Amino acid sequence: MIGVFDSGVGGLTILRAIRERLPGVPTIYLGDTARVPYGTKSPEVVIRYTRNNARFLLSHGISLLVVACNTATAHALPTLQKELNVPVVGVVEPGARAAAAKSRSGRIGVIGTAGTIASGAYQRALQAARPGCELHALACPLFVPLAEEGWLEGEVPTAIAEHYLGQLRGRIDALVLGCTHYPLLAPTVARVLGEGVALVDSAEATAAAVEDALPPTRAGGTSHRYFVTDVPVRFAEVAARFLGHAPETVEQIDI
Amino acid sequence: MIGVFDSGVGGLTILRAIRERLPGVPTIYLGDTARVPYGTKSPEVVIRYTRNNARFLLSHGISLLVVACNTATAHALPTLQKELNVPVVGVVEPGARAAAAKSRSGRIGVIGTAGTIASGAYQRALQAARPGCELHALACPLFVPLAEEGWLEGEVPTAIAEHYLGQLRGRIDALVLGCTHYPLLAPTVARVLGEGVALVDSAEATAAAVEDALPPTRAGGTSHRYFVTDVPVRFAEVAARFLGHAPETVEQIDI
Repeated sequence: MIGVFDSGVGGLTILRAIRERLPGVPTIYLGDTARVPYGTKSPEVVIRYTRNNARFLLSHGISLLVVACNTATAHALPTLQKELNVPVVGVVEPGARAAAAKSRSGRIGVIGTAGTIASGAYQRALQAARPGCELHALACPLFVPLAEEGWLEGEVPTAIAEHYLGQLRGRIDALVLGCTHYPLLAPTVARVLGEGVALVDSAEATAAAVEDALPPTRAGGTSHRYFVTDVPVRFAEVAARFLGHAPETVEQIDI
Repeated sequence: MIGVFDSGVGGLTILRAIRERLPGVPTIYLGDTARVPYGTKSPEVVIRYTRNNARFLLSHGISLLVVACNTATAHALPTLQKELNVPVVGVVEPGARAAAAKSRSGRIGVIGTAGTIASGAYQRALQAARPGCELHALACPLFVPLAEEGWLEGEVPTAIAEHYLGQLRGRIDALVLGCTHYPLLAPTVARVLGEGVALVDSAEATAAAVEDALPPTRAGGTSHRYFVTDVPVRFAEVAARFLGHAPETVEQIDI
């Protein structure tokens, strides 16, 4: 069984890619909706919450853990990999490798939460994937509340995207969407950046990394469970937009 | 000693008014910065966090509790007043009474988080303070992240304020800023609404309610302590803007 967690709903895009690639494997998803967002919090607090989430999923017998949140991956991946005795896959390295492969010019942008960008995790992963590349790393803090509100198109999202990203126009040919909320804003981001910029998210590349790292498991029933830390109503409402179909069941827990 | 809590820094505007009105009384402030914001969370979760915060402050021997967060007041004030054996003062009723007194026409607006507006707490308090008044209640979810970012003026904040509040122009003569973050955006809000609209926040009125409810206490040293649940650095940086001076000390706790 594969365990996947995120601060909220965004990680469902990662889960969706995993389920499409590995249709026979059971999954368990945890959205920490009572403590969302992680992107504005300190590394210490994000590491603490990440440990809580990992402990909950491990108690369900997972054989691989996916940190489907860029901020949690940026702050806590090495800690979890050291502390846990199952493989732990994050979203930063797969996304960075995908972007490095897509860029022809080697001029690459990465956008994320304040926490993700300040951590330098993407900058290190991109330099490792494509040594000598020219990097532009920018925090876009208003993108998460816009995506959570479903306010994705029109004057305000465009003005916010222009404020953050206008400076990148003509200077990059690939942009990592370094937050699982950002793919919802991709059409607006693409219009602001103009043609010739590939937008890269981590979903496909992370699913491929999961397939590589998954320990062999005995066959069993394929079930998919969803847990959240706030009430399930709103999660269930927006989950379909990220997952592509309604989640089977959503249960609330207190961790 | 007076205990004051908020989801983060916004409640410092309430604390400031209390300290100015009652300079001899020691205070203890708790900002739940690891779990901010409350405005997007369910009533159940807000009540749970509010109980945690109250328990922490009570363990320090407070004789009165101030819920300096509109969302927490809206969801949890009756619960706390029932459960605790000290007086509990919220910010909704004082703010509503102040607005009812300031409005000549009886056409009053109130803005707040999604949670505050959905709770109906301001709507009930305003109807009680001014029966038959014409109410316009609107959630402004992007205002909290804008205020947290310090992005208070210019094209984007104005476009967001216009999106939320343009519909109120000419229809009200008083507006309750029903979230402790919103006073930072008051100049932009005032420009969008045009002249003749009084903007009302709860700070002064809440301080007056605290003075009325405060049990007599024996004299002692006046100390002011600050606690936060995330690391103190960012809190200390922005606290001065809300408090009017740097906080004496800021200590981190895990609740």
